[in-house]
Amino acid sequence: MNTIETPALLVDMDALEWNIRLMADFLLARRARLRPHFKTHKSPAICHRQLAAGAKGISCAKLSEAEVLVSSGIRDVLIANQVVAPAKIARLAGLARGGACVTVCADNPRNVAELSEAAARAGATIRVLVEVDVGMNRCGVRTAEEALALARQIARSPGLQFEGIQAYEGHLVQLIDIGARRAGVAQMQATIGGIKTLLEGNGLAVKEISGGGTATWDITGDDTIWTEIQAGSYVFMDTSYRDMGLPFRDSLSVLATVIHTHPGKAVTDAGMKVCSVDHGPPSVKGRPTLEVRLNEEHGIVTDEAAELGYGQRIEFVPSHCCTTVNLHDRYFCVRGGTLEAVWPIPGRGKSQ
Amino acid sequence: MNTIETPALLVDMDALEWNIRLMADFLLARRARLRPHFKTHKSPAICHRQLAAGAKGISCAKLSEAEVLVSSGIRDVLIANQVVAPAKIARLAGLARGGACVTVCADNPRNVAELSEAAARAGATIRVLVEVDVGMNRCGVRTAEEALALARQIARSPGLQFEGIQAYEGHLVQLIDIGARRAGVAQMQATIGGIKTLLEGNGLAVKEISGGGTATWDITGDDTIWTEIQAGSYVFMDTSYRDMGLPFRDSLSVLATVIHTHPGKAVTDAGMKVCSVDHGPPSVKGRPTLEVRLNEEHGIVTDEAAELGYGQRIEFVPSHCCTTVNLHDRYFCVRGGTLEAVWPIPGRGKSQ
Repeated sequence: MNTIETPALLVDMDALEWNIRLMADFLLARRARLRPHFKTHKSPAICHRQLAAGAKGISCAKLSEAEVLVSSGIRDVLIANQVVAPAKIARLAGLARGGACVTVCADNPRNVAELSEAAARAGATIRVLVEVDVGMNRCGVRTAEEALALARQIARSPGLQFEGIQAYEGHLVQLIDIGARRAGVAQMQATIGGIKTLLEGNGLAVKEISGGGTATWDITGDDTIWTEIQAGSYVFMDTSYRDMGLPFRDSLSVLATVIHTHPGKAVTDAGMKVCSVDHGPPSVKGRPTLEVRLNEEHGIVTDEAAELGYGQRIEFVPSHCCTTVNLHDRYFCVRGGTLEAVWPIPGRGKSQ
Repeated sequence: MNTIETPALLVDMDALEWNIRLMADFLLARRARLRPHFKTHKSPAICHRQLAAGAKGISCAKLSEAEVLVSSGIRDVLIANQVVAPAKIARLAGLARGGACVTVCADNPRNVAELSEAAARAGATIRVLVEVDVGMNRCGVRTAEEALALARQIARSPGLQFEGIQAYEGHLVQLIDIGARRAGVAQMQATIGGIKTLLEGNGLAVKEISGGGTATWDITGDDTIWTEIQAGSYVFMDTSYRDMGLPFRDSLSVLATVIHTHPGKAVTDAGMKVCSVDHGPPSVKGRPTLEVRLNEEHGIVTDEAAELGYGQRIEFVPSHCCTTVNLHDRYFCVRGGTLEAVWPIPGRGKSQ
């Protein structure tokens, strides 16, 4: 590990494997299946481990991520988002024609018409979930009637197959209080249950209800109406999720070198270009009393007890794993202090 | 421009060239020379335009950026930062041996000894600036006596050449009030002038005093003690710098597509993985009344007047150009609405 140049993104392999196992085993004993999210780790190597542990397929956020997944041998991919613009829709149809099982979300009749046209032209089948806004106030249809109309349109559209409902609870994942998360999920379940009943009463089988995340893994995942859990961050955790008291372990860190010390302070070579700050500054692994502030290229650590010295290496635990990973080209995979592998991050920057 | 997939990083070439010209012309008429900062744009194509307009060389923040610069044919590079750790110092010496004129900052005797050893072993000459903390409270020596001791050590060290002083005013660049910036620069100039006098009184010629930035370009650059101005952001600007009333033009934006609308709101496909938020959310180009909030993969635009429709393309002007660029692999260079070039960003992710 001493040979790794800094700053570098580290993965603790024992903790990663523990997290993959814990989530997979929980859901193997329940109704919902695991469809972990690629947007967090952007690594096919981690996807293949998740699939080997029991995941049914992979979720991702963008078409260009789905292309990385399919080209990495992953055959069942959900884009948990809308794909808009003709050139992208043609590529989506191309992915589906190539033999992959590709599912996308829709909330707009014009988008559904464009998806159908492209799929029919390509001789492909695209599976479609109707996205319902369950309180996040972002994308998704707002009413049961809109959901019914869109599901009907999908079901009768050439090249499309109606699969069910996308219902992701982004508005709940930062609630620290588990009671609040439970109440939110119960409210969503009532809403989605009503829509499911309406659709099925109209002859539209709702095969999948997809959503869920790391913060609600043992709520949405615990034999509710959801059939797929899209958790992502559980593989790594971060200081935001740690505050929720979840049982997953920190496996991600940014290795940094102290390049300057001064009484009460140490400066490292790792700043916000290698560790995101959208959820706040990172913490220092194993040194909970130290406080960190990041500049662009530097991390400034308050170090009243002069714990840190020139040239010393420390690890920052990010506050937000997903946006931190997106800054890096590779993982340095470490087990018991030894570098075990270097993995590329081919999904890095795949935002289209 | 209609063929560009979104999200995409756009450069308005007319505005870029105007900015490059304005800064270069101002400094061509003054004592200080321009050494623009690579950390902002990370593009050798832009460096070569800056050099053609009159810049003396390029500044950068990290060794791996310097390697990109030298391999792109740029022969005079300042790493405005410390390079720590033996493997990196050996690479730095290798760069200098290869024929490039390489300057680095130092604030630590042990670091100077390591630089000397590596340079001597490589048969190279590394130029060194003593970094002085002029109020930023990050790296740099704190006293004139420390500066003198370090300059003496550099001057007598094999393989090293003492060049002068690094004095960067990072603590002033976010002061909106120009009077406050002027007062801060005057205070710095008194400090640095005292150190220069001390060093030169001890036979150590201070050839360069390097620092300055976009926010102080016409203060530090206006025939002060500084000999090099390291401005970076002026090529692009961003909403943070715009608030300072600087005469440079917005040339950078993130092209986004509206993927969902709802009364009072539009959702785009551009989130914080393509537009940094460390200085706050972006604004919408040409639509100053719209407010933006970024999620990881989405931009949510408050749109009370329903200006935006499904499939429409808009441009976000980032709040911080440097960290936004670091999220992208290429620039789409546009002139008068036509795509003129696609430039790689080989410095992206070069944080070591």
